Amino acid sequence: MGGGFSGLAAALALGRAGWDVRLVEARDRVGGRTLTRWLPDGTQLDLGAQWLGPTQDRMYALVAEYGLTTFPSAALGAPVLRWGGGLHPEPPEPTGRVLARLDALAARLDPAAPWLAAEAPEWDRLPLSGWLADAAGDPAGARYLGRLLAGGLLATGPDEISLLQILFYLRSGGGSALLLRMAGGAQQDRVVGGPAALAELMAQRLAATVGPGALRLGAPVTVIAQDAGGVLVRTDRDAYPADAVVVAVAPALAGRIRYDPPLPALRDGLTQRMPMGSAVKVHALYPEPFWRADGLSGVGTSATGPVTETVDNGTPDSTRGVLTAFSYGDEARDLRRMSPDARRAAVLDALVAMVGPDAARPDGFVEHDWSADPYTRGCFCGVLTPGSWRGYGPALRPPVGRVHWAGTETAVGWTGYLEGAVRAGERAAAEVTAGTSGYR
Amino acid sequence: MGGGFSGLAAALALGRAGWDVRLVEARDRVGGRTLTRWLPDGTQLDLGAQWLGPTQDRMYALVAEYGLTTFPSAALGAPVLRWGGGLHPEPPEPTGRVLARLDALAARLDPAAPWLAAEAPEWDRLPLSGWLADAAGDPAGARYLGRLLAGGLLATGPDEISLLQILFYLRSGGGSALLLRMAGGAQQDRVVGGPAALAELMAQRLAATVGPGALRLGAPVTVIAQDAGGVLVRTDRDAYPADAVVVAVAPALAGRIRYDPPLPALRDGLTQRMPMGSAVKVHALYPEPFWRADGLSGVGTSATGPVTETVDNGTPDSTRGVLTAFSYGDEARDLRRMSPDARRAAVLDALVAMVGPDAARPDGFVEHDWSADPYTRGCFCGVLTPGSWRGYGPALRPPVGRVHWAGTETAVGWTGYLEGAVRAGERAAAEVTAGTSGYR
Repeated sequence: MGGGFSGLAAALALGRAGWDVRLVEARDRVGGRTLTRWLPDGTQLDLGAQWLGPTQDRMYALVAEYGLTTFPSAALGAPVLRWGGGLHPEPPEPTGRVLARLDALAARLDPAAPWLAAEAPEWDRLPLSGWLADAAGDPAGARYLGRLLAGGLLATGPDEISLLQILFYLRSGGGSALLLRMAGGAQQDRVVGGPAALAELMAQRLAATVGPGALRLGAPVTVIAQDAGGVLVRTDRDAYPADAVVVAVAPALAGRIRYDPPLPALRDGLTQRMPMGSAVKVHALYPEPFWRADGLSGVGTSATGPVTETVDNGTPDSTRGVLTAFSYGDEARDLRRMSPDARRAAVLDALVAMVGPDAARPDGFVEHDWSADPYTRGCFCGVLTPGSWRGYGPALRPPVGRVHWAGTETAVGWTGYLEGAVRAGERAAAEVTAGTSGYR
Repeated sequence: MGGGFSGLAAALALGRAGWDVRLVEARDRVGGRTLTRWLPDGTQLDLGAQWLGPTQDRMYALVAEYGLTTFPSAALGAPVLRWGGGLHPEPPEPTGRVLARLDALAARLDPAAPWLAAEAPEWDRLPLSGWLADAAGDPAGARYLGRLLAGGLLATGPDEISLLQILFYLRSGGGSALLLRMAGGAQQDRVVGGPAALAELMAQRLAATVGPGALRLGAPVTVIAQDAGGVLVRTDRDAYPADAVVVAVAPALAGRIRYDPPLPALRDGLTQRMPMGSAVKVHALYPEPFWRADGLSGVGTSATGPVTETVDNGTPDSTRGVLTAFSYGDEARDLRRMSPDARRAAVLDALVAMVGPDAARPDGFVEHDWSADPYTRGCFCGVLTPGSWRGYGPALRPPVGRVHWAGTETAVGWTGYLEGAVRAGERAAAEVTAGTSGYR
């Protein structure tokens, strides 16, 4: 169940293995945390997950397999970094040193079992903000790094995650350079037509190979019951008997399903302790990408104000200027409490501070808040709370009888990304075909 | 909805105010996190919440109103405190000083809005374990205090909660002395027949005053839909139209309901960040309370091993010895991973270390794990994760349209206790009758 990339990948893998598969999805669309909106002039706006980068091999392979193409993210010119009360071309001094130290620590853990690291108890209890305060040495650097890492990577605040959580994430994604870079990193490429178009093609392939009834949209799963004979997946209207079920949604969503028998306490406890990140993603639209004329890339990171990150989100086939702003954690919560007009004004003020006064007059403003969507509950992904990795991390992947867990949160490599979603779905499908629980 | 003390108190208050009330409860019984089991010889075992103490005025008033009585908890003789590798009659040296300092810090916050304290950002990010390491000065003291406070009060580990969470709890319950004492504190008295008997009488009163259909058991609420005209509460089989609904369950349970329209992002975010505590409560039964003959009260606190607290849980009308053991956080999780036999052996070893070799041969052993119950998901109560109080605490009580929030987690005074449950239910009922949301 779950028609995002993880569920699609699992269903396709099971279909290829000859299983009779049903993919049951709550929404009336597939694609999960990806969503593309088209402006009347044809400009593509990616409202959710949007990037691919080096070593995300499964995603590039899928893009090719389904006849889609990618294009390089627009990042022409200099970045704007806002910290210590001003704008700079470079991050604050301790940044490189601190990132190197984090990568070195991350190399000491196994991304398949970060809770086993010798230092895991200490790293799990330590808030990232506290560690950064010591490691950066100066408050401006710590503040910048906190927003860059907790915000930019996990859409949360540096007080809300542990050092272990960020180390796991850095390790899973191949290190800070790969994770943070545009070109050469996880923000390198975009999909022509948006990643949601790939999900749509995967769904069509599923219907073509398994049968037109393989995909059930608009069907939120309410109950998963299992016994020695099989598993029964219930929605409001239907019931699907099966040999096994792959739950391909984030733990915060899996925890809303009723299980019979109930989940073991440790697995249920995990679903109580892995909240989704908290991001507001806003697209400010302009007649043209005016910042490029000023030599700016539109790519920015800010240690102050409501916006932590900006990016030039234009596409090669459109002359429209698209400046996308991301707000995380505390700042995202503050924005949510505002009226739409006040929120718009606050975001535009922040954009003006980053790329100049022309940002004040967009001719379009599109916001999307995944935290307000009950079938997502937040983005980018679920994040274990401080002190929870050691006790509940071991419950992340082991199947519970006939119930297998997918979703990007369960990925060992590229967790939190589309790549992790696909890998996790294919891993769960392999568990099922291998009969891990002995039911086949 | 929710037939624990909070829901019962809310329904009775609304009934008294002339409202036509339905109390919808998932289980086939009322009482929530209270449950009494009777041994064949008539000995009363309280498997869940069991104590009352000074300043818990609403609970004592209810006990009297419904013609029940209380009896003092058995605590005859000396306590046994296990720390620093041995048994002691006194806690480690820093204990008194550290508790006084915590009480002094707690006095600086408003229990109705702990997130507004000047120091809230710092206190919210700091793990209790980290603060204790500094404050206690010696590791043995920090370890003892961590288990006493995070475990004994919140059924969790000192790495899993923030300093702000424990300060809020200390303030809400009137300070460490009131919270931790047996006589003179929150463990002073028990209810003859168990608190579940009081819940049963409250349910009978509700049926008598509102009508026999007022209570609907075995009816898990699945959907709460509201619009300008009213609210509709759905279970698997029925739908209840109403002017307002009081959701009298913990946030971790409220988060499993589907809301239409969806909850605001901040309220939904709260339900993702307030996991239930994690306790295993075990009753070891003996022909007689042998520890009393050795001058021991059976009351113990241990900084080592699987059991953090013990208590003599005998009743005046039974000669049976009942030694009740509590395990929390890491230790509770370790016990859950064991086979029943191994768990029993581990607990009995710990009891032997506390009260002597006679503890090794009980003639009965009754365990109850509220974390394995899908309509509770853990105990004693929901606890906000580190870094979450500031962002999500403000969403704890404000109604969302016609949906009002009760449950002991929303109490200002005695949160986490039966007293807080009743106060929260009556507060939510008062919101409804006052027409806070303007729907009446």
